[in-house]
Amino acid sequence: MNRVLVTGGTGFIGRHVLGPLVQRGFEVHAVGRRAGDAPDVRWHEADLLDGERRAALVTEVGASHLLHLAWHAEHGKFWTAPENVDWVGATSQLVREFAAGGGLRAVLAGSCAEYDWSAASPLSESASALRPATLYGVSKDATRRVVERLVDESAWGRIFFLYGPGEDERRLVSGVARRLVAGEPAAVSEGTQLRDFLHVSDVASAFVALLDSDVTGAVNIASGQGVAVRDVAATIARAAGREDLLNVGTLPMRPDDPRELVADVRRLESEVGWSPSLALDAGISETVAWWRRMSR
Amino acid sequence: MNRVLVTGGTGFIGRHVLGPLVQRGFEVHAVGRRAGDAPDVRWHEADLLDGERRAALVTEVGASHLLHLAWHAEHGKFWTAPENVDWVGATSQLVREFAAGGGLRAVLAGSCAEYDWSAASPLSESASALRPATLYGVSKDATRRVVERLVDESAWGRIFFLYGPGEDERRLVSGVARRLVAGEPAAVSEGTQLRDFLHVSDVASAFVALLDSDVTGAVNIASGQGVAVRDVAATIARAAGREDLLNVGTLPMRPDDPRELVADVRRLESEVGWSPSLALDAGISETVAWWRRMSR
Repeated sequence: MNRVLVTGGTGFIGRHVLGPLVQRGFEVHAVGRRAGDAPDVRWHEADLLDGERRAALVTEVGASHLLHLAWHAEHGKFWTAPENVDWVGATSQLVREFAAGGGLRAVLAGSCAEYDWSAASPLSESASALRPATLYGVSKDATRRVVERLVDESAWGRIFFLYGPGEDERRLVSGVARRLVAGEPAAVSEGTQLRDFLHVSDVASAFVALLDSDVTGAVNIASGQGVAVRDVAATIARAAGREDLLNVGTLPMRPDDPRELVADVRRLESEVGWSPSLALDAGISETVAWWRRMSR
Repeated sequence: MNRVLVTGGTGFIGRHVLGPLVQRGFEVHAVGRRAGDAPDVRWHEADLLDGERRAALVTEVGASHLLHLAWHAEHGKFWTAPENVDWVGATSQLVREFAAGGGLRAVLAGSCAEYDWSAASPLSESASALRPATLYGVSKDATRRVVERLVDESAWGRIFFLYGPGEDERRLVSGVARRLVAGEPAAVSEGTQLRDFLHVSDVASAFVALLDSDVTGAVNIASGQGVAVRDVAATIARAAGREDLLNVGTLPMRPDDPRELVADVRRLESEVGWSPSLALDAGISETVAWWRRMSR
């Protein structure tokens, strides 16, 4: 039986991978600083930045598969946070320990921040398109380079823009949804920039499919569709029935914000054989409904 | 006064940087697992892989400059040793701690192993020429990417091939010199491949010049001259007066060995303003003389 060690199992994406992994027949071991709660999952409490604890856990679990989602992800700060450096080391060591213990296949979370954001979309996975501009992007990119050398069979899922229930409320979709549901006005920018959004449960589902495939190397985890940020906001407003409260253009556009960040998803579609199950409208409706339940 | 923290201060290169740094007016703090012995140098015993000890040391020294030469360098094993991963993390953390403590300028030891060895020589520092084939090269390359983002003013010296007194006797120059001086036959390959050799004291001198400059980014530390390995061996034999004992062509050439690995040294010469002081003949003679003294 395939045994998978999932890191970040209590995180925004991690919560959504556990069920699908169980369904695919994996024996699922999840690690977090605090144990989570999911059926048929064995929880291990550990801080992955504690080297001794991490190494002991890897040995104890003896997994054949690794799905590494954990990283420093504090909203608004993670782009430049020095904690990124902790995760370069911890991730590299984790994979080294996993491989040394007989681990066969590792899939890790990368980011579209590894790409050159001034390049034309759609962004394909080719090495020539890599030019991270932030410590976060540099750290992910550097980690991937080491990881690819440490384990023969590894894949690296580059996440684009995600949204869904439980997202930090300071992020775009959650922020607008929460305010409108609460009857508060929501201010957004002109929002003409195109972004590639994918619902968190689809992001998780894509990672599970990637883990359960034999595809190696970098694979974009995205929808392949560019949608204007203003249209995302308008979709939220319609779903909330509060188009009157959405104030488009009242926040400034960031001058350094790229016009378009959209993934080339040919590898994900044709090699992994995965495509999204939730259209943006449906995903937004579900997210707004979740905020409505939360506000009661 | 500029205060420099030197790592690997007891190592093959490190021993040779301390005097020149003192001469240039630096207050020199050297760290090693064991203290070394050099005039006007303050020694700190520490294992840089011990995170708490390393962080405390960086705070204690409060250096304005960092010259990081330490790495896992076990002969014949370092290319693929998992310990490379330790040094990715430790080096990144060291630089992060140095910068957080007010450090201004960091110079670190990189390697020609970061380059695509199938590319045509001379190898320039451009990013397009990077394609490391070993865990060592990948780890150095990945570390550089993180370090460049962590400290505003950093330089990365890519070492090519070095030799000199005190080198591990399993390496080419030392191995041949030791045998011939001892009156033993020395077997080498056809040795038609061209390599860029630099005497260790010149390598050290180049690092000191780089540290004391304001040049940033990757800089090749090399002679810029390609010399056939067979000619290096012949030079050793002449210096030892034992051309009779040198058996060229009795060892096989490695099929994957690149024909030519020579550095483009224009950055080192024109921007750092440094050039070698020791020609290959003179450096080899000095090395053979050292082995003669050692064998008495």
